[in-house]
Amino acid sequence: MRVGFLGLGGMGRGMAANLLAAGHELIVWNRSPEPAHALARQGAEVAPSPAAALEADVLVSMLADDASTRAVLLDGGALAAARPGLIHLSMATLSIAFVEELLVRHAQARVQYVAAPVFGRTDVAAAGKLNILAAGPQAAIERVRPLLDAMGQAVWPLGDDPRRAHVVKIAGNFMLASAIETMGEAAALAQGYGVEAGELLNVMTNTLFAAPAYRNYGAMIAERRFEPAAFKLTLGLKDVRLALAAGEARQVPLPFASVLRDNLLEAVAQGEGDKDWSALGGRAFKRAGQA
Amino acid sequence: MRVGFLGLGGMGRGMAANLLAAGHELIVWNRSPEPAHALARQGAEVAPSPAAALEADVLVSMLADDASTRAVLLDGGALAAARPGLIHLSMATLSIAFVEELLVRHAQARVQYVAAPVFGRTDVAAAGKLNILAAGPQAAIERVRPLLDAMGQAVWPLGDDPRRAHVVKIAGNFMLASAIETMGEAAALAQGYGVEAGELLNVMTNTLFAAPAYRNYGAMIAERRFEPAAFKLTLGLKDVRLALAAGEARQVPLPFASVLRDNLLEAVAQGEGDKDWSALGGRAFKRAGQA
Amino acid sequence: MRVGFLGLGGMGRGMAANLLAAGHELIVWNRSPEPAHALARQGAEVAPSPAAALEADVLVSMLADDASTRAVLLDGGALAAARPGLIHLSMATLSIAFVEELLVRHAQARVQYVAAPVFGRTDVAAAGKLNILAAGPQAAIERVRPLLDAMGQAVWPLGDDPRRAHVVKIAGNFMLASAIETMGEAAALAQGYGVEAGELLNVMTNTLFAAPAYRNYGAMIAERRFEPAAFKLTLGLKDVRLALAAGEARQVPLPFASVLRDNLLEAVAQGEGDKDWSALGGRAFKRAGQA
Amino acid sequence: MRVGFLGLGGMGRGMAANLLAAGHELIVWNRSPEPAHALARQGAEVAPSPAAALEADVLVSMLADDASTRAVLLDGGALAAARPGLIHLSMATLSIAFVEELLVRHAQARVQYVAAPVFGRTDVAAAGKLNILAAGPQAAIERVRPLLDAMGQAVWPLGDDPRRAHVVKIAGNFMLASAIETMGEAAALAQGYGVEAGELLNVMTNTLFAAPAYRNYGAMIAERRFEPAAFKLTLGLKDVRLALAAGEARQVPLPFASVLRDNLLEAVAQGEGDKDWSALGGRAFKRAGQA
Repeated sequence: MRVGFLGLGGMGRGMAANLLAAGHELIVWNRSPEPAHALARQGAEVAPSPAAALEADVLVSMLADDASTRAVLLDGGALAAARPGLIHLSMATLSIAFVEELLVRHAQARVQYVAAPVFGRTDVAAAGKLNILAAGPQAAIERVRPLLDAMGQAVWPLGDDPRRAHVVKIAGNFMLASAIETMGEAAALAQGYGVEAGELLNVMTNTLFAAPAYRNYGAMIAERRFEPAAFKLTLGLKDVRLALAAGEARQVPLPFASVLRDNLLEAVAQGEGDKDWSALGGRAFKRAGQA
Repeated sequence: MRVGFLGLGGMGRGMAANLLAAGHELIVWNRSPEPAHALARQGAEVAPSPAAALEADVLVSMLADDASTRAVLLDGGALAAARPGLIHLSMATLSIAFVEELLVRHAQARVQYVAAPVFGRTDVAAAGKLNILAAGPQAAIERVRPLLDAMGQAVWPLGDDPRRAHVVKIAGNFMLASAIETMGEAAALAQGYGVEAGELLNVMTNTLFAAPAYRNYGAMIAERRFEPAAFKLTLGLKDVRLALAAGEARQVPLPFASVLRDNLLEAVAQGEGDKDWSALGGRAFKRAGQA
Repeated sequence: MRVGFLGLGGMGRGMAANLLAAGHELIVWNRSPEPAHALARQGAEVAPSPAAALEADVLVSMLADDASTRAVLLDGGALAAARPGLIHLSMATLSIAFVEELLVRHAQARVQYVAAPVFGRTDVAAAGKLNILAAGPQAAIERVRPLLDAMGQAVWPLGDDPRRAHVVKIAGNFMLASAIETMGEAAALAQGYGVEAGELLNVMTNTLFAAPAYRNYGAMIAERRFEPAAFKLTLGLKDVRLALAAGEARQVPLPFASVLRDNLLEAVAQGEGDKDWSALGGRAFKRAGQA
Repeated sequence: MRVGFLGLGGMGRGMAANLLAAGHELIVWNRSPEPAHALARQGAEVAPSPAAALEADVLVSMLADDASTRAVLLDGGALAAARPGLIHLSMATLSIAFVEELLVRHAQARVQYVAAPVFGRTDVAAAGKLNILAAGPQAAIERVRPLLDAMGQAVWPLGDDPRRAHVVKIAGNFMLASAIETMGEAAALAQGYGVEAGELLNVMTNTLFAAPAYRNYGAMIAERRFEPAAFKLTLGLKDVRLALAAGEARQVPLPFASVLRDNLLEAVAQGEGDKDWSALGGRAFKRAGQA
């Protein structure tokens, strides 16, 4: 398949490389040119503009957020000028409000919108082992299935309404942030009685909480290993804000998300915004005046 | 070994039965006599008073809380009258403040205090598959090891200071309550966009959150199956209070625990205290005005 | 002075009437025509379009929120077409982010922006007794001083930067919401011991809290008198959201505002959005299962 | 009247001096002897033991908290040995749970318990201008009225049940803590936009919040003047804990009180426990990384 690809950040470059490796024809665009050139050396064509990347069977977008997606896809007219019938595989974490706007714009341009946000950090993306949440027109999803299979270890079907996949992604990231905060508070409590975070989390992640989220982030908290960032704390704050906004639009109070927002915001105010978002867990030690 | 056993509630009766089955000699006491008689039919001796159960090599206590432990062990003078050298295997979830008082009283009575609180609900206790957190004098722990092995699938050594095992238990229950609240909020958010809790949790508990705590409580939340209670919501409130009190004594703020306390208290105020504490997760739907 | 006036809601109509009464020449516009006609009977001219109201010495706007201000002033091109040198007296409660956009657009149109948000509900507006927060170019403020004096009992000078007046307005509304929540919680606590809200608040509002905010809202809470709404709960939620957004833009965590947001959102979810925002105080009784 | 007086801390010494000045015969006791000797120079008799101070017509107690009241009144047997018919004017801030225990013990000793907690700091106590909340047997209250009048500017009658006065005192202190937190957050928000706390609070405390609580604490926050402490932050934490405990006993969730508790606890953990509790307001600046 001929695939246009927008957004070659930490996640996108690994995903695009896996599409190339699976034999697809790729035309890529990125705001800064280096990642595109790197992929060109692997066989991709470099698009001179975002619009050029839409001249394909399928467009994949993995841009940083609402704002960059709007800038690349809408503001320059790329979407409006797209070929009717194009399938857009939208894989970034976007706000529900923006997705709703995108759905209107895609309908106007007669482009099919398939939501396919993912779980997995950059190493998982590079390994082609993402978990992909898919929602949209079923025929379109079937059509892009080879692409999804090249990028992920599993595709989780979530129905026809693209917002459903996006909200599951947002809810999942909220659950991760909650787990990080929870481990931080539990570890600070234990440390008050001389139990190191690693001792506590060793018990918990081998019993009731024997899950990747707890093991990975638990180790980072136990070791206070918050740099380099695999996922920046400022991005975590953005995602918690997406949860709060999505909740507000449907009148769903989220008291834990509110606490997370305040704690993340405090971390940013105190200079920790560029650390990994697991640094949220480290805040509990600071609050308690612990080393 | 001759083992005295105090407290034959849902947890204690299964644990005591496993000790019997492993060939130990048991003398049991319970406030209401029926569970003691049931165990007598399996070969246990029934103690006429708590003090009589202390005439043994090892005393195991699995009473409901601080108050009942105080009433049974301290108020009637049973501990004060105990044989010096007795090992007390203290397996209930107790407050750190009360454990500190117990440590003083045990030292006065020259009784060795081994903390051994457990993770696992009644079915796990009956199956002898508990996870046991052990802290106290190492020689004493070695001495009671056969008892621990009869009751649990694993013993997690936590050092010499008994408070360390108790605080890990308290921190672990806080983590469970946090996971329940988190799933409730995430599910209410998803439901605002037509995604059923079961759909969301199916994805999450098969990927990032593939852990018993999430699977078990997630299923209960997805099905709104909060009765009958395996662990009552009022007990969950008690345990969150233990976390807050233990934190306060060491100046450890626990903002998530504060939210949990308020939400559990509201649930009790509105008549849900006797439901399973997974009903905490169901509160999120109510707050959002969802069915 | 010839004054254009946009927005004749509950607040605006009283303010406009006071300008007329002070002898100013008024040209008014409102989305629904009735309030404009009512003012016409008092001597005002009715503008056929928003743009027509800008043909004046001073423009006063008192529209509902960001969205309506944007629709009326920006989307139709009224501001862009305004006479350079016009002074715009912006009196509504607007978000800081939107004010920052307005400042750019006013500079482009060479219209002077004077921020003048107010404290006081509709009865206070009608009586010309508002407290007005003024910030902007000092010469422009001096120029419109007769208008401010006609609408308010006091003008509080806040410097040259218009955002300063808007943020004080937002902070003040947050303080009001906090006071309402505080009284609700305190009253529910007292009621748990048989002390009626009126008894508690009688003591407090005659001693430490002898202030209008506590007296007015305290009486409403004591009497559970939340209808008809003088200021709707949904508007209160909007204003708390303005505080959270303004804080987030400057990395200022506001934990009380987060609680207020969740409690207000829950009230809306449960059908209380059209009540007076003092109904926020009534939520505390509901949470406690009190009548 | 012959009056026994227990507890000559910052509050008690002023209150006792006013009783002396009003012509009453005083027998005083304090844990450290100096304040008692100071009052002796003004004409008071010094009691050799707490029990000796109960040999009077009326006993006034103004001890620091539950623990010291228990130590002085109950543990040594002073109350049990009291003359039946003695009136005990209990003026300290005590927990509801302890008051309930005191009521039982007073009934056993046939001593009449009159609750009379106060609003006002040490300067107000010295000036005889306290606001006194009175609840208990009406005849006893009438009997001690001259004492109340000597110590206070007003007596607020709250009925027969002594707990009613104590809960109003607890609710009032919660309201004060809430006001301090609110002003801190509002001031940090404003400061994010260059508005000094003093500018914001000048507007608010001259309009909607023109009340002593806001004026006094607002000035301290604006000037970051948290030392010397008129009321220590650790005592504020204790009082918020009393509110939470009283609420929990009646199943009244208090989300604002939970936030206050966490913020106060964090302040203590970070070395601010001995500052005035208005330092709670200063935490908002720290959270935002402001100077």
